[in-house]
Amino acid sequence: MAAEQDPEARAAARPLLTDLYQATMALGYWRAGRARDAAEFELFFRRCPFGGAFALAAGLRDCVRFLRAFRLRDAVTSFPDVQFLASVLPPDTDPAFFEHLRALDCSEVTVRALPEGSLAFPGVPLLQVSGPLLVVQLLETPLLCLVSYASLVATNAARLRLIAGPEKRLLEMGLRRAQGPDGGLTASTYSYLGGFDSSSNVLAGQLRGVPVAGTLAHSFVTSFSGSEVPPDPMLAPAAGEGPGVDLAAKAQVWLEQVCAHLGLGVQEPHPGERAAFVAYALAFPRAFQGLLDTYSVWRSGLPNFLAVALALGELGYRAVGVRLDSGDLLQQAQEIRKVFRAAAAQFQVPWLESVLIVVSNNIDEEALARLAQELVAVGGQPRMKLTEDPEKQTLPGSKAAFRLLGSDGSPLMDMLQLAEEPVPQAGQELRVWPPGAQEPCTVRPAQVEPLLRLCLQQGQLCEPLPSLAESRALAQLSLSRLSPEHRRLRSPAQYQVVLSERLQALVNSLCAGQSP
Amino acid sequence: MAAEQDPEARAAARPLLTDLYQATMALGYWRAGRARDAAEFELFFRRCPFGGAFALAAGLRDCVRFLRAFRLRDAVTSFPDVQFLASVLPPDTDPAFFEHLRALDCSEVTVRALPEGSLAFPGVPLLQVSGPLLVVQLLETPLLCLVSYASLVATNAARLRLIAGPEKRLLEMGLRRAQGPDGGLTASTYSYLGGFDSSSNVLAGQLRGVPVAGTLAHSFVTSFSGSEVPPDPMLAPAAGEGPGVDLAAKAQVWLEQVCAHLGLGVQEPHPGERAAFVAYALAFPRAFQGLLDTYSVWRSGLPNFLAVALALGELGYRAVGVRLDSGDLLQQAQEIRKVFRAAAAQFQVPWLESVLIVVSNNIDEEALARLAQELVAVGGQPRMKLTEDPEKQTLPGSKAAFRLLGSDGSPLMDMLQLAEEPVPQAGQELRVWPPGAQEPCTVRPAQVEPLLRLCLQQGQLCEPLPSLAESRALAQLSLSRLSPEHRRLRSPAQYQVVLSERLQALVNSLCAGQSP
Repeated sequence: MAAEQDPEARAAARPLLTDLYQATMALGYWRAGRARDAAEFELFFRRCPFGGAFALAAGLRDCVRFLRAFRLRDAVTSFPDVQFLASVLPPDTDPAFFEHLRALDCSEVTVRALPEGSLAFPGVPLLQVSGPLLVVQLLETPLLCLVSYASLVATNAARLRLIAGPEKRLLEMGLRRAQGPDGGLTASTYSYLGGFDSSSNVLAGQLRGVPVAGTLAHSFVTSFSGSEVPPDPMLAPAAGEGPGVDLAAKAQVWLEQVCAHLGLGVQEPHPGERAAFVAYALAFPRAFQGLLDTYSVWRSGLPNFLAVALALGELGYRAVGVRLDSGDLLQQAQEIRKVFRAAAAQFQVPWLESVLIVVSNNIDEEALARLAQELVAVGGQPRMKLTEDPEKQTLPGSKAAFRLLGSDGSPLMDMLQLAEEPVPQAGQELRVWPPGAQEPCTVRPAQVEPLLRLCLQQGQLCEPLPSLAESRALAQLSLSRLSPEHRRLRSPAQYQVVLSERLQALVNSLCAGQSP
Repeated sequence: MAAEQDPEARAAARPLLTDLYQATMALGYWRAGRARDAAEFELFFRRCPFGGAFALAAGLRDCVRFLRAFRLRDAVTSFPDVQFLASVLPPDTDPAFFEHLRALDCSEVTVRALPEGSLAFPGVPLLQVSGPLLVVQLLETPLLCLVSYASLVATNAARLRLIAGPEKRLLEMGLRRAQGPDGGLTASTYSYLGGFDSSSNVLAGQLRGVPVAGTLAHSFVTSFSGSEVPPDPMLAPAAGEGPGVDLAAKAQVWLEQVCAHLGLGVQEPHPGERAAFVAYALAFPRAFQGLLDTYSVWRSGLPNFLAVALALGELGYRAVGVRLDSGDLLQQAQEIRKVFRAAAAQFQVPWLESVLIVVSNNIDEEALARLAQELVAVGGQPRMKLTEDPEKQTLPGSKAAFRLLGSDGSPLMDMLQLAEEPVPQAGQELRVWPPGAQEPCTVRPAQVEPLLRLCLQQGQLCEPLPSLAESRALAQLSLSRLSPEHRRLRSPAQYQVVLSERLQALVNSLCAGQSP
């Protein structure tokens, strides 16, 4: 049973994560005697998503897991892979083809890749996969599936992080709206990589090490009527000394003061909501949070939160935050901050001034931009739109890719060249072709970074993969070096991806119909 | 190893497919002494997706798998569940809480549900889940995640099927754009349930029994230069008698006739594309398809396809189709049909007239509506937008739901009532409250169907789940009975979901702040 919870084993268990046309083409190659031809394909995208000028590369860790475990199995599983393929391919298919499939693995596959968290630009390969034609063909769909959504989510997260600035906490809470379990797992993992702080998805924490965070939901609040009697209403002081206190009774005392301060009748705040807050505070005295908008923010949620928070405060605990999940989030948050300040002064509890105000509910870039000026923490749900389309236009030949940097370390442009060309040198003048240009231009980079790292060579991992947190840090570092005009989220300057003279000449000759 | 490929085991392996706030609330309930309180929650949506007036219920089979296998495990796995939860909950959490978690399963959980493939309308529960409060809370996120995307995809597929009509073949090919592996698996499974004919996703075929179909891709075509020498170029006649024929040579002969007929030079069609078609035909002589738009549909793809198809035809094989993946799909398809008709007459091969024309490339409802008039088969990729939002507004109490049907069997409206009310009878006049109405109205249904079926009782499956194909058939039957004004995809008449008098009275009393 252990294997089934291991993400590596799970990826391994799905070699048929592919399109049938990949399998039919595999048979086509095999029939044509080309199964073992050397082949290479590249995954790239043509337009940056979300109208920006950059993307983040992500998904490589999932690709590596998949590749290392890739093997069509028959005997050892209740879902025999090759037998299934045989059942959907023509009945007169040569049995030798299936024998070939049973022997397949990725031991002859080599992968070069942009490290996860790198900036990625249109036309620059995220992955270069080389190996025997038949294997490489079978890998195309699963690798696309693993890279494109991951990169999209990471890019989206990076954009939201840029809007929010480096300090604000971003919490991803999208699991219940995701494309099923793994859709959610992928989204949570790569939102973190792209710059979110944490996720509510426990599975992402368990399997991927994403920091998890949570709060309470409306259903918790509504499940309390106020007439419940907790088995143990006593809470010991934070310092651990002295007798415990009946928290509900203490909160009731504070409620009267809070209502007087806010000009509310003491009967107005909903007793069930307060009971829910007390129950939550008993379970999480050091991490008490209130969800304010179940009944009425102003007449119920806020006074109930203050009553429980002040009762906790008397015992030496500090409430950590409130959450708003409906209405005009910004306006409410600003007014709540004022209430917190006034109550902090009134009741002489300075920590109340800086209690977190978390907002959630379909926060997109525009809403976040408006909120980011004001708030300390934001819960977001990435919007997902896939614009990568790596299939329909390719540059010929095996390519190398370099990032040319200015003297301040900011990327000037990426350059593609033929794999066999010499590596460009820092300080050297290069003649390069921008896309669609009639003339080459020259550039003298202060630094040159090779973009594609050898990741898997003949099936063997070349170096340990960085941790998710390390890739997340790389993403933030890379973004910080990107110049403001390219980093801009709306109408950014397009980042240029240029071709070397030799690659441009090859493209020209192919376009003119000459053989290269 | 067998277990890891079993979808039931895979679902079982993910009890932490939940939001951390569910786990924190579970602790809150436990601390409040309410872990074993009887509880019920319902999943429903408030607005139909895609601007329509209906949705299809789907995802129940995944929910049942998840529920039957649900168990937090520690000892038997390398990813211990309870230990992980302990690591993200406060360090001073009572160890007895974790003992409680270790003993949890769904043996006290009961589920009522709309059968998969049923029509679903806003406010009518897709699922009613009852059981001990703590368990039921933990199940909320995973069940939402499993139901909402599945229902969305099935609804989308049903809409595309309505546009295409019952006869046209719809092939789903979205795996490479999906939200990772399971996003794709879910999309393929429920596109089929909603009305598609097949998927290119092999894993969906293997694990879920979805019919799979495939063709060839551009990369296959471009991988051939024309100079390849197949190890065995000979193809035996379809009837199996007589000597084999060199298919490439035969196609070359036909190419000259085809080019003469089309007014093209015999050098114009790309030799690599033709070699690819020949290779594919050698592998799939009974299922030959051509992808026409790799180089030029008119000067290369079409003549090459005709040459190979006619060569195959001489041996008694019939090509099955061509695919277009770019450009103005409708216009090209119409012109290709003309070419097929003319060539059928010219070369006296009547079967050529009716060769399938498959189109693909971001086909949405609008494009499909335009195409559906003309074409025989369409490959689609569902667009996904999640509009369900089951959390923010609920009707009180445990409810029963009925569909009231007219004498022609078409649904008139759905009625929600309290669970304890008597079941409405056919032919009986009912007083019901439409949403927002000031007055009740009366309805006399010719038939009454209970909507929620007991699916899982105290953790036990009450009846075998229908097969995916049976649910697919139910979906089409249900849609066929829906009246045209509700079935309409744009600006449909809203289907009414009404409340019984007693339920309406309960809602009114709650809105007025009285206790019920």
